Amino acid sequence: MDSRTGLPVVGMVGGGQLARMTHQAAIALGQSLRVLAASPDDGAALVAADTMIGHHTDLDALLRFAKGCEVVTFDHEHVPGEHIRALTAAGVTVYPGADALRYAQDKRLMRARLAELGAPVPAWRPVTSIAGVEAFLAEYGPAVVKSTTGGYDGRGVWFLSTAADAEPLLDGGLELIIEERVELRRELSALVARSPFGQVAAYPVVETVQRNGICVEVVAPAPGLSEHQAVQAQQLAIRLATTLGVVGLLAVEMFERIDGTILVNELAMRPHNSGHWTIEGARTSQFEQHLRAVLDYPLGETTLTAPVVVMANVLGGRSEGMSLDERLHHLYADDPGARVHLYGKQVRPGRKIGHVTVLGSDLAQVRARARHAARWLEDGGEHT
Amino acid sequence: MDSRTGLPVVGMVGGGQLARMTHQAAIALGQSLRVLAASPDDGAALVAADTMIGHHTDLDALLRFAKGCEVVTFDHEHVPGEHIRALTAAGVTVYPGADALRYAQDKRLMRARLAELGAPVPAWRPVTSIAGVEAFLAEYGPAVVKSTTGGYDGRGVWFLSTAADAEPLLDGGLELIIEERVELRRELSALVARSPFGQVAAYPVVETVQRNGICVEVVAPAPGLSEHQAVQAQQLAIRLATTLGVVGLLAVEMFERIDGTILVNELAMRPHNSGHWTIEGARTSQFEQHLRAVLDYPLGETTLTAPVVVMANVLGGRSEGMSLDERLHHLYADDPGARVHLYGKQVRPGRKIGHVTVLGSDLAQVRARARHAARWLEDGGEHT
Repeated sequence: MDSRTGLPVVGMVGGGQLARMTHQAAIALGQSLRVLAASPDDGAALVAADTMIGHHTDLDALLRFAKGCEVVTFDHEHVPGEHIRALTAAGVTVYPGADALRYAQDKRLMRARLAELGAPVPAWRPVTSIAGVEAFLAEYGPAVVKSTTGGYDGRGVWFLSTAADAEPLLDGGLELIIEERVELRRELSALVARSPFGQVAAYPVVETVQRNGICVEVVAPAPGLSEHQAVQAQQLAIRLATTLGVVGLLAVEMFERIDGTILVNELAMRPHNSGHWTIEGARTSQFEQHLRAVLDYPLGETTLTAPVVVMANVLGGRSEGMSLDERLHHLYADDPGARVHLYGKQVRPGRKIGHVTVLGSDLAQVRARARHAARWLEDGGEHT
Repeated sequence: MDSRTGLPVVGMVGGGQLARMTHQAAIALGQSLRVLAASPDDGAALVAADTMIGHHTDLDALLRFAKGCEVVTFDHEHVPGEHIRALTAAGVTVYPGADALRYAQDKRLMRARLAELGAPVPAWRPVTSIAGVEAFLAEYGPAVVKSTTGGYDGRGVWFLSTAADAEPLLDGGLELIIEERVELRRELSALVARSPFGQVAAYPVVETVQRNGICVEVVAPAPGLSEHQAVQAQQLAIRLATTLGVVGLLAVEMFERIDGTILVNELAMRPHNSGHWTIEGARTSQFEQHLRAVLDYPLGETTLTAPVVVMANVLGGRSEGMSLDERLHHLYADDPGARVHLYGKQVRPGRKIGHVTVLGSDLAQVRARARHAARWLEDGGEHT
């Protein structure tokens, strides 16, 4: 408890944009997010009054950080499971707990557990040798090799043309799985929040668009998704949150196959890029919802605030030419309704430095506005 | 400019809830609000990473604070005009400037200037003696005495029954004006933002409800206001912002008389309680709009996000019984759509400690939900 306000203190390990936006939500709840940031230049460290500098692999730092927090949660999946268990053993409330979080930390564990639960997943197998790769390719055709840990934004994922492509990976000392390359219509994401009490709230299912493995666009609700598919995806996410014992947010990234059936791709147990649209596009943002969930507050309404919401990520682009500040001036002149979120990061090519959300009723129009705004912030109009 | 992000630094003098909510908006714009707070326990100081402790009447502190800010602005009107002029003379960009702000600082100057501009105001007069009070009462009937400076939330305003009521005020060493007591249907507020470039954006006119001189409720848009009245009120606010040279927000508090005509009551040149509903209820919140205005960014859309928006203030109430945290639990269970904003303040009777916003389409229902939520946070359900 904060003795000045009588309200709980939530600590978030990791100082990136997720912590930055969670801090905004914490302010409304009367709190100030406590942030463990690796560097004072981290996006959340720049804005949160209660920031401690320390590394998420340093158990001592984690224990000091957790002191005085009602609950500790995460802006990424990279805290070692044994550290989370040590925190819990020391009496710290950690959500999501180690037993749940490992399924977001280790793709092999996740695949195995999901298969056990009868959840729809692509054909997959652990793989350690060229012979294994060859056998899998022979059985399933085109495949993808994934590192079981540490991957995000397209890292740790390799598309194979031939078995030989896997050789340097097999020699790389990583634990790997191999999966069938799913012929997909598109990718979807089902976001739910779950509280320790067991309440679950599901957001509308969204379509996510990736480029080079990085999410570039999210459309809410997923266009043309049937009520049946939407309910199925939400029910699956709710079932996984409950069965895996997730507390906080669970984003279930899914493939929609050509035949309309759904497969689980990845799990994330934190605010997720596929939920940034909720800041303006849903009655309760995912960031507030995550706080409410880990604090065991009753969850907030998840309904849309407009018929169509599109979020476009802003990736670092041209650093020459107009400054980001100038680009913002021009964008605001061009589209006074675009909702911009910048993360306080230095621009590096391909790095997520912000996102833009546009709300409206005409999908094509809303999508065009969001894309235009994001591209403008990326390259100062050079795309036109 | 922040060298790490390449984005401008805005400094806000005053660390109350307005600065706290402006910081939330600054985060989205890629910035971190720089706050000059009188105490480390101030609402904004609790959440903003870049806080300096110092007093707004200390010119030295103001000058140190302003270093490195692109622009300095205010969360209240209490910075002495000569200090603002000294900042400007030292090369600091200050918005609103001293020449505009004095009309929000001094009611006598404001009344005189508005009368000069032909803006509708109640009958008024400076007053220094009982004879002056008696003459005014004889001419206009029931009257109100106001301190020309320092008043807010009903302070510095006295209703007179007889001339004798004014005696202690006249002896109190304050500069006073006397005004006719307007027979009013209700109070309205017209909020506009103006940039140095001269762009002005007007929000929908709202109805404000006061209790003991403190705003307790705001309804957007003002129910039953005719298009003609609304446009008239907006045009008046735009004209005042332009003529007085305001940069940033201008809230024009108005009386609607029984005959439907409008009089100007007060001016405020900062984010205003009558604009808190814009956080969820308008496409651009007043806090972001204020930042955009003082930075000379093009202004954002001011359209409503729902047919009806009601904001209810949470005033400090019973401190015994349930803690604020428990009350929040119960409120969220009762109304998962209520949008709560708490200011990080210690509860004291009558003190504004937060507000609740509800959006919907049925006025009576939305209003009842907002009131219920605010009362619940105030007294833990003892009102039911």
